[in-house]
Formats: sequence, structure tokens, C-alpha cells
Amino acid sequence: MPELDPMLPAPALFGEIDPPQRLLMGPGPVNAHPRVLRAMSADLLGQFDPEMTGYMNQVMALYRPVFGTANAWTMLIDGTARAAIEASLVSLVVPGDTVLVINFGRFGLLLQEILGRIGARIVTVDAPWGEVVPMAAIAEAIAAYGPKVVACVHGDTSTTMAQPLEGLGELCRAAGALAYVDATATLGGMEIAADRWGVDVVTGGLQKCLGGPSGSAPITISDRAAEHIFARRHVEQGIRRDDIVDGAGVRIGSNYFDLAMIMDYWSEKRLNHHTEATSMLYAARECARVALGEGLAARFARHAASGRAMTAGLRAMGLTVFGDDAHRMTNVTGVYIPAGIDGERVRTMMREHFEIEIGSAFGPLQGKIWRLGAMGYNAMRHKVLITLGALEACLAAEGFVLPLGAAVPAALAAWVA
Amino acid sequence: MPELDPMLPAPALFGEIDPPQRLLMGPGPVNAHPRVLRAMSADLLGQFDPEMTGYMNQVMALYRPVFGTANAWTMLIDGTARAAIEASLVSLVVPGDTVLVINFGRFGLLLQEILGRIGARIVTVDAPWGEVVPMAAIAEAIAAYGPKVVACVHGDTSTTMAQPLEGLGELCRAAGALAYVDATATLGGMEIAADRWGVDVVTGGLQKCLGGPSGSAPITISDRAAEHIFARRHVEQGIRRDDIVDGAGVRIGSNYFDLAMIMDYWSEKRLNHHTEATSMLYAARECARVALGEGLAARFARHAASGRAMTAGLRAMGLTVFGDDAHRMTNVTGVYIPAGIDGERVRTMMREHFEIEIGSAFGPLQGKIWRLGAMGYNAMRHKVLITLGALEACLAAEGFVLPLGAAVPAALAAWVA
Repeated sequence: MPELDPMLPAPALFGEIDPPQRLLMGPGPVNAHPRVLRAMSADLLGQFDPEMTGYMNQVMALYRPVFGTANAWTMLIDGTARAAIEASLVSLVVPGDTVLVINFGRFGLLLQEILGRIGARIVTVDAPWGEVVPMAAIAEAIAAYGPKVVACVHGDTSTTMAQPLEGLGELCRAAGALAYVDATATLGGMEIAADRWGVDVVTGGLQKCLGGPSGSAPITISDRAAEHIFARRHVEQGIRRDDIVDGAGVRIGSNYFDLAMIMDYWSEKRLNHHTEATSMLYAARECARVALGEGLAARFARHAASGRAMTAGLRAMGLTVFGDDAHRMTNVTGVYIPAGIDGERVRTMMREHFEIEIGSAFGPLQGKIWRLGAMGYNAMRHKVLITLGALEACLAAEGFVLPLGAAVPAALAAWVA
Repeated sequence: MPELDPMLPAPALFGEIDPPQRLLMGPGPVNAHPRVLRAMSADLLGQFDPEMTGYMNQVMALYRPVFGTANAWTMLIDGTARAAIEASLVSLVVPGDTVLVINFGRFGLLLQEILGRIGARIVTVDAPWGEVVPMAAIAEAIAAYGPKVVACVHGDTSTTMAQPLEGLGELCRAAGALAYVDATATLGGMEIAADRWGVDVVTGGLQKCLGGPSGSAPITISDRAAEHIFARRHVEQGIRRDDIVDGAGVRIGSNYFDLAMIMDYWSEKRLNHHTEATSMLYAARECARVALGEGLAARFARHAASGRAMTAGLRAMGLTVFGDDAHRMTNVTGVYIPAGIDGERVRTMMREHFEIEIGSAFGPLQGKIWRLGAMGYNAMRHKVLITLGALEACLAAEGFVLPLGAAVPAALAAWVA
């Protein structure tokens, strides 16, 4: 037996996991559905056990309708939503490729950040924070730059705007470009129509409208994009097989995010890649079962009602809602912090008195707006009403003059509208 | 409301998650400790909630003794064990750097694979599969190649060998190299002495000796390595702050795996990066609490007893154990498939009749050996005995002539040895 270093301090074990029961009404993560949390306590399986690969196939089937697609390649990336973004971009984009980013918030900047590290030539078509980019401007930019890939966020929680994507795929196909969409903040809450939009790769996360924990990221890949990616396939040493042939394209710059190997892992080839994160796969599976069991149309309507109610309640308090009304995400609402009110003091009071979390903001909006989410398991009438009532009490306590008792009835009226 | 595409098939919801209760006695993943599975069903928290950042700090404290280190930078990477390997290498290695890989199995090949994509100049010092690399050969290779980084697997499950690492850090420091160790398959089961070995970055996974699910990867980083990594810091657009200054070094090629930003996220700076995978963090925290509660020395002894018992039982059946006895991992044992026996038929019989999974093998060992693990929650006497009894029955059913009833008593005798 090796001896342990006696100089190391004796370890403290802390207590059992026992988090306070916060109501998470920010831009995500949100509280997970209890069925999702319970699914994660199921026993594990070996990664090539037929029961496990059966669950993997079920996950593929369950996420196709969630993404609005018939794409065979619909699966999970083992990491947070950001992992799936990077996997998509590093697998689609060859260093030196021109990539057009449709940029209207922090997560458009994130796309550029990731693309910069990949070595892409980045061009952008931009909107100010709080607006979206008109499709005509996107068409012009595609014509002007001739990009290999067009990359876009669907709902950018930093600005609460949802970029319309009808017609994007047609523009891209006509120009020979592949289209990537980051739907992290909308998947399961607003309609994602990968096939009707004609976009090639769409990724999401569980921790927003799907009502699960962060750590597994659903992805769908068109056959057209899959062909492009398989042309870059490079199976790692030690597991090469006669039935899986390398492509002639430029090798993908990451092993973990090599979508060609990940697709071979999820296919009947069952190429050994990472060890699938089984508990997170159980969670992702249950998220989709909850969403499809409710019905996607009903679920989108529930998110829309929550957003309407939240917005109406905030306005009834005399607050000003941020951004372009016509392109608001249904599941997160930005609202200006009133003059003379300390936004962080209110957030702390919301948490300490009411156990409710609301969000701050990034970049040019930091200190200027709060972001209130109603996503997934929290896109519910009573949670919106509770949040509005609590915010009213905190604002009144801070000396903000507002029409007491107006927010909740306004929200109730807007819910059914 | 957008209409859903009526052409999409109505989604099947499949059943509730209900996996069969397999006993996973392969090279990992293994069954998770029930306390770990239960921890994951705790409610979620916002990522900058003080309760959440408190749990993050506890995780840092809990993993220091697990890694045998006082390193401040001890935390989690959100992905499988392979994610932490790539994060380490992409953050340590600048394209063009010479990296020496200590190569004695499939996971040494994986290190090379990842390094190749990063653009490293790779040199190796090798041992045949089933042996380890003598420290004198490593010293010679360091002297000959002058590497910037030396990368090594501690326990390579593909060959069941554990590379001795005493003195590696001293050699590396003398040569001005940083040392990286992949301890995925040994962390929590064999001693990891990051500080005594003097190595700079060590990574692991939960799904082997720590008895948790795949999907979160502990990592520890020396101050020396952290300084090197922070010199490459490049905070992404949209979240830049005056108190976090970019370094002058070459930007890290990945955003998700940028250890500088991940360290800023885990530090008091709380830089926004990914959304921490909360349920997996709960799991990782509980894995460490279970391990430290048992006591690391007792835990290593239990793994060693399991390995001794498994090896003794296999030999008592007349089977030949694979590889160098002096450098065997305690927690996984390779054994030759006897002549005339179909290895996959036996594995299927083990699974279908006994609900026990044992492992096949990779590369040059595929079809030649089975790999039997006894890791984490499964490194227990009764599970080793059950596995040996089942294997004996399967081999006998397949016509292999063996001394019936010999394996279990041999294993029992070896357990206490």
C-alpha cells in the first residue's frame, strides 16, 4: 500500500446534498421537471449493452419531432449546450472557410469567438441588441460574402430576441452554404422547424425550455451536412476498423467534438468514442418524453402564454420592457431596472425573501435590465404570478412608486389572451 | 402559433426509464453508488447562486485529497473523461510544441490522436501492450527530444497496465517540461499522488473507480501549469471585464476546453463560461464524499484485494492472465480467451443468464482477451465471487475443461492475502 501524504489536510466531507428550493425564473438554467430528476437515479448500463444502445436509438427518435426534422442524425453531445455549438462549428468549418454570423447579441459573439479559434474567416450581418436581422439583410450578406457556412442563434437570451428563420435554408442552399442554428434557449419552448427552415445543423440544451439539467446537448444534422462531415472523418488510432474508412477532407480539429466519430458511435457501427454520459442520456430522454407527452403545440402555447403574462404584469407595474415587441422570445423577458433602483439589491431580496432567482444581464445591458424567464417546468401560470407579486413587493420596499396589486390581474388577463 | 409539420410521424414516447439491473464487471463504466444516483435527483440551482458556488468550492476541496494534491486549481470539466484530456492538452500545448507521449496502450494512442489535431510535434517512448515504460527510458527520451509537455496514461484499461510515475515530475521539471497524466481509470481506486509525483495536470472520470456516471471529469492543475495557461487567456467577446486581462501567449484553440476561462469560472471571478452541469456536479461531489468517507487507503486496499481475488480465481480456473504481473492495475484484469472458446458467445451468456457484463478488448488484443473489472462500487468481494462463479459456469457450458469449484475458494483466499 502506498502511504498517503501526511501533509495533506484531513478532508472535510461537508453535508449531504441539500440545496434550497429556489424558483429559477431567470434566463436559465431553470428547475428541472421532477420526472427528469428521477430518471437520472436509474442504474447504469454498459455503453454497448443492447439495452443501452436501444435507449440511444429511442433518444434519436424522440428528438426528431422536438427539432421538427426527419434527420437520421439526431442525437446528443456529451457536454453543455456550448459543447454542441463547438462540435457543430469545428466539424462543419474548415480553417480558412468564410462563415457568416447573424449577430444580434452575446451568443452571436460567442459563435464568432468559437469560429475565431477554429480559424474561420468571419463576416457578420448585425442588428443592435434588442432587434433581429431582417432576412433581406441576410440575403444581401450571403450574396456579398459567399460564405461556406451561415451561423445563427435562434433565441439570444442576452437580448431576449428570437431571430425569424423561415427561408434561411433556401437562401443558404441556393448559395451552396450550410446553415447552423444555435437553439439552446428555445428548443422545447418555441417551434424549431429544422426541416421547414431547411437548416442543416441545429443544437440545443436541456436546461432551458426542456426543463432538465445542463450537461447534455441535443443536436440534429441533415444528410447534406453529414456527408460534408463524413468527408472529414478520421478514425482515431487504436480503434480503426475495415468497415469505417477515413475521408479525404481536412481532419476535424477536435477529437471530442468530431461529429463524424460521434455519428459512427450513435450508428449501428457503434464505433467506440467517448463513454456516453448515461445518467444525462436518461435525463435527455425524459425531457423529450415530457415535452412530447404534453404535445409540442400545447407546450409552445404554454410558453407563449407565460411570456405574455410576464410582459403584461411588468408593464402593469409601470416598468418598461426591453427590445422589439415583434420578435420577443416567448420564454424570457427583459425589463429595464427603474431609475434610482439598485438592480442587484432587488435580485438579492428576491432570492433571500422569496427564494426566487431572476437574471441580470451582459455587456451593454449589464446593470440596465433584468431578465425574467418562464421556461420548461417553470413556464406556468402560478410561477409567473408568484414572481410578479414578489417583484412588486421588492420594488415597493425599495421605494419605487407603482400601482400596487396591478401586476397579477394584468398577467392573469394576458395568460388567456 | 406556428403549425407543426403534419408530415412528421406521430412521436412514440416509449416507456419509463427502466434498465435491467446489470452487474457491470468490465473496464468501466460500472454501476454507480446508490448515494451518487440519489444525489443527482436534488433540485437545481442557478449557476451563480451562492449555494451553487458554495458547492463548487466544496467540490474543489473534496477532490484535492482524491488527487493527492494541494493544488488550488482542482475542479470539474463538463464532459466525459475524454473531455478533460482534450481540455488539458489543448490548453497546455501550443501548436508546433514537441510533446512526448509515454505510450503503452490504446489510450496512449488517444493522447497522440488528440495531440495530432492540436498540431503538436509528437514523439513517443513505447512499451509493448502488456508492459509499461521504464523510467530510465522516459528519462532518455526527455533528454533526447526536449519536449515542452510529457503526456502519459496512468492506468491504461486496454492493456490493464499501470505506469509507475514516481519521479516523473522531477525529470520533467529538470527539463523544463510540463507533465500531464490521464488517470481516468485509476482515480479513486489506485493512489494518485499528483504532488508527490510532481506532475502538473491530472484528469479523471467518475465512471470507473469513483463509482459514478460518465459525464463529469475531475481535473487538477499545478500553479506552474496554471501560470502557463493564464498566459494564453483570451476572454470571449460579450463577457470581457476590466479585472480579467488577456495573456500574451497563443490563444487556446478551443473555447469550451479553454482552461483559463474555466479556471476564471471556478475562481472568485466567476467569469461566465458554460452553464455548469449541476446534476453531474452533485454526482461528482457525492463520489468524492463516498470515497473520502471510506478513507482513501481503505479504498485502495479494497481495489487491490478485488484485483488479487479476481486474478487468483481466473488462474484457479486454468486461465492465463494477460500482461506483466508487476505492473497490473488493481481494478481491471485481462485474461486470455481459451483456445476453442468464442469470446463473444461467453460474454453474451454472461449477460443473458447472469446479468453480468465483462469486457472485450481493442486493437491487437481484440478477440484475444476479456477484461474483467472490479471498480468503485463493484470492487467488492461478493461481486468478484459472483462473477467468477458465473464465468466458470459459462466456460463449462461451452465445453472448456476446468477444475470445477476451484475459482471461488482461490479468490476468497487471495482476498485476505
